[in-house]
Amino acid sequence: MKFSNTLIPTLRDIPANAEIASHILLLRGGFIRQLGSGLYTWLPLGVRVLQKIERIVREEINKTDAHEVLMPFVQPGELWKESDRWEVMGPDLLRMQDRHENDYCLSPTHEEVITDLFRKNVKSYRQLPCTLYQIATKFRDEIRPRFGVLRSREFIMKDGYSFHIDEKSLHATYLAMHDAYSSILSRLALDFRSVEAHGGVIGDDENREFHVLADTGEDAIAYSKVSSYASNLEKAEAVATGDVATASETLTKVSTPNIRTINGLVECLDVPIERTVKTLIVQGRDSPIGLVLRGDHELHEIKAARLPNVLSPLTFTKESEVRHHVGCNVGSIGPVQLQIPYYVDRSVAVLSDFVCGANEDDFHLTGVNWNRDESLQSAAIQDLRKVVEGDPAPDGSGPLSIQRGIEVGHIFKLGTKYSHTMNATVLDERGESVNVLMGCYGLGVTRLAAAVIEQKHDEIGPLWPLEIAPAQVHLVALNVPRSSEVVNAANHVYEQLTTQGIEVLYDDRNERPGVKFADADLIGIPYRITIGERGLKENTVEYQHQRELKVDVSLDQVVPTLLQDLG
Amino acid sequence: MKFSNTLIPTLRDIPANAEIASHILLLRGGFIRQLGSGLYTWLPLGVRVLQKIERIVREEINKTDAHEVLMPFVQPGELWKESDRWEVMGPDLLRMQDRHENDYCLSPTHEEVITDLFRKNVKSYRQLPCTLYQIATKFRDEIRPRFGVLRSREFIMKDGYSFHIDEKSLHATYLAMHDAYSSILSRLALDFRSVEAHGGVIGDDENREFHVLADTGEDAIAYSKVSSYASNLEKAEAVATGDVATASETLTKVSTPNIRTINGLVECLDVPIERTVKTLIVQGRDSPIGLVLRGDHELHEIKAARLPNVLSPLTFTKESEVRHHVGCNVGSIGPVQLQIPYYVDRSVAVLSDFVCGANEDDFHLTGVNWNRDESLQSAAIQDLRKVVEGDPAPDGSGPLSIQRGIEVGHIFKLGTKYSHTMNATVLDERGESVNVLMGCYGLGVTRLAAAVIEQKHDEIGPLWPLEIAPAQVHLVALNVPRSSEVVNAANHVYEQLTTQGIEVLYDDRNERPGVKFADADLIGIPYRITIGERGLKENTVEYQHQRELKVDVSLDQVVPTLLQDLG
Repeated sequence: MKFSNTLIPTLRDIPANAEIASHILLLRGGFIRQLGSGLYTWLPLGVRVLQKIERIVREEINKTDAHEVLMPFVQPGELWKESDRWEVMGPDLLRMQDRHENDYCLSPTHEEVITDLFRKNVKSYRQLPCTLYQIATKFRDEIRPRFGVLRSREFIMKDGYSFHIDEKSLHATYLAMHDAYSSILSRLALDFRSVEAHGGVIGDDENREFHVLADTGEDAIAYSKVSSYASNLEKAEAVATGDVATASETLTKVSTPNIRTINGLVECLDVPIERTVKTLIVQGRDSPIGLVLRGDHELHEIKAARLPNVLSPLTFTKESEVRHHVGCNVGSIGPVQLQIPYYVDRSVAVLSDFVCGANEDDFHLTGVNWNRDESLQSAAIQDLRKVVEGDPAPDGSGPLSIQRGIEVGHIFKLGTKYSHTMNATVLDERGESVNVLMGCYGLGVTRLAAAVIEQKHDEIGPLWPLEIAPAQVHLVALNVPRSSEVVNAANHVYEQLTTQGIEVLYDDRNERPGVKFADADLIGIPYRITIGERGLKENTVEYQHQRELKVDVSLDQVVPTLLQDLG
Repeated sequence: MKFSNTLIPTLRDIPANAEIASHILLLRGGFIRQLGSGLYTWLPLGVRVLQKIERIVREEINKTDAHEVLMPFVQPGELWKESDRWEVMGPDLLRMQDRHENDYCLSPTHEEVITDLFRKNVKSYRQLPCTLYQIATKFRDEIRPRFGVLRSREFIMKDGYSFHIDEKSLHATYLAMHDAYSSILSRLALDFRSVEAHGGVIGDDENREFHVLADTGEDAIAYSKVSSYASNLEKAEAVATGDVATASETLTKVSTPNIRTINGLVECLDVPIERTVKTLIVQGRDSPIGLVLRGDHELHEIKAARLPNVLSPLTFTKESEVRHHVGCNVGSIGPVQLQIPYYVDRSVAVLSDFVCGANEDDFHLTGVNWNRDESLQSAAIQDLRKVVEGDPAPDGSGPLSIQRGIEVGHIFKLGTKYSHTMNATVLDERGESVNVLMGCYGLGVTRLAAAVIEQKHDEIGPLWPLEIAPAQVHLVALNVPRSSEVVNAANHVYEQLTTQGIEVLYDDRNERPGVKFADADLIGIPYRITIGERGLKENTVEYQHQRELKVDVSLDQVVPTLLQDLG
């Protein structure tokens, strides 16, 4: 691949509207260009990266006995109406009508199409299990596309779907996909976690997200550094920190004039925030319900909305209604003799000698202890809060770390969600018609290219892992075409390398050395060979791996050296 | 690839609405399924064929120094408005609005996008020539999609675009693409012709279509069997048949009551149709114009519409107006003393002793000879007709053959058509801004899969060329899993073959032999190995190449035999 006849429009400056490393560096290195909002063209170097990612995905997914198919990008609306998602999907689903005024949409996903394919072509349990996947273009009409190809509207995904006669078979494929995804991300040299997650629109049975750890990730994930435990923060279980200590203080009612906030309380009474308790009031089925958390903890609204008798979606009770039920303002509530039902977070249940509202304006209680001052039923103890850094991992393996992650994959057990709605059945061993069980498995291909850069770059440019770099070696010929020695030597090295099947980006342009070096930095190919007149006088060329020191290698030895390093 | 865990839904019956071989056989062999009008899912065997075609396309196109890119499928309408094609394209261009009510369309082609990419990223002639291509999904909202994937609405194309500073460079790339297309089609083992053609919407400079010869093709092409001359019938030049003979008859006016047609004239006067002449009247700039053709020849409307003073689009003059200008009905017109200007087809210009209308109702002239009876200016002699089988080839190489062809590719010199409209310029050697010259090169990938079957099939099923067959060998295990000898032998052969990198479709199903043989016929993989109990008793298996005779090969020798045959 000669630089002179391809399109690698590198940029010296940081482009406007690009905020994160992958967006900036994919633009600056000439890998992508924006066509419109959330629409990107992949240029020659970018296509090479994508195709290498796709090859790795194919190799690992094929090992699971999944077979590749290719479904249309344009889908008939009638299938989405049958599954009830024509309405559910909202404006993310880009709809259109063809010349005959029939409804169509652009595929954000293919559950409907694959279920329709299955029900029309598979009749017997003997044809199961069957796993099909594709690597194809998707479209989601995001309201605010951002971060370049990390959250674009048009993107490439690997989406797979499996069909099973029983849960055991589904589980085996689900695990095989988990392994395949782990292998793919490992081959991409990524630091990643597979995390527990809540389901989305697709289904909410057992499922797992794959996150590439990166500060620019849109999701926070909690994980144990010593075990495999990892969870989306939205789903992570919070367990109590510490054990119940013995009561040592007496219950005391103290005046706290105008104190309405935890921070005010901490300052007023000079107590550690970890010993304060706050009580939030939300709407319940029969009456408002109290949610009692430690002062420094944050309510997890999804967890709270799932509690018995609590209304979903979670709604906070109005101030006036709170006073009607509790007899004080919202800043003075506490669990002791509270006149409405309440739930207590696990971390509050283990507190002793704590501080809380007295259910009377401008008063709080100190030295509060459960059971001595207020009885605590085990049913009231619940997981109400978001986990924080340092919380114990629920698997008992030690403290949790919290990092941001880029979600690149998601595997789901769909069960009969679609097979039921769309009537996809097979005959089982006894000749009875049963709804097939399904799994679905998504992996963002274009997103992976960006995620790699988020994790693999420095202040100079991207640091592509060898297996997906746009080429293995960047051959820089200085002062060409002026120096015929350099032209001859570089042409010879280029020919030797390509003959050996090595992918080379050969900078044969009539450009200044500074331009060539700057472009090489922005492109980020792992190995670099620089051939110049000065070195050739000593019969040497410069050889460099990523940001390591340049070394002089004799012209004869540079190809063998590279071959050895490439393994 | 095991038959048991993939989706190969073969069909015993010919599906409704499938008329041609490729449509029928792709459905029956389980290669494709229809999702909606003009929308097809490619199943596992079909994807394998497509990917092999794509690999061949990439290999040959990459040899031309073209570089692969990937442009969005969803395109902003504003680019199409800039090029004026938003209106020109008509309802084939599927338009939509996103959630912000901006105009978009689904790509039928990418001239606008690539020209926009070019003008924003290339500034100097030193970056030229540059050729970019993609293999990507397209959409054309055909009014009547038909013939399966041969004329679907969603399809895959290789589309390439080149940029040049001068015609010489454009011509070199145009020729390189011509060679690459020829290599691709040769590797697909196709009988094809590259033919002269009129331009379409894209442009109408020099261009060439690639047709796969097949009776079901939508286009007729005329070609010389002994030279490289080939032309779309729409464009093919018709030359005179024979030389001018000497006049031997005298000019005679004969009564032909109620004779209005050539067939009637031939019957009435008992003359060969090749010596009759008909005169059609079309609208001209200043007056109606006569078009004089041999009775057995057909007017070529596109050629006629391009003649000086003839109005385009071609419009036939109304009967009443004809009588006003000529003085007789349309069936009695002839060139002798015709009162309006006329053009004479080349084949009429060489006639002698011919028959034509007398410009008087119910009379014709016989024994007509040019120059003796009516002078004939050379400017009036034009190519007015469609060529027919047996016409002389315009390159003088002998008679033309006419066959139907499937257009699978089209290469164009666009010149400055888009660079002018969209202002794509570079600085030339003198530092002056000039519009870049462009070429474009399309090749239908999904269409090629169908075209191969149109040419390579028999009454039993498809006969896939080895290089794009869904697998190289079909391994049929009979009476499994009942016979453990067969299971063991077949598993062993399967393992040996896959270890050698051979692609195998292994029919390991618990199905009757008849079912397995019928499926193998419908799938059409070139080599077949059948393992059964009877043969194993003699330590042999059956080995067959396509429709050749089955031979018994010893179990030990079957893998070496296949490897040798595969070369």
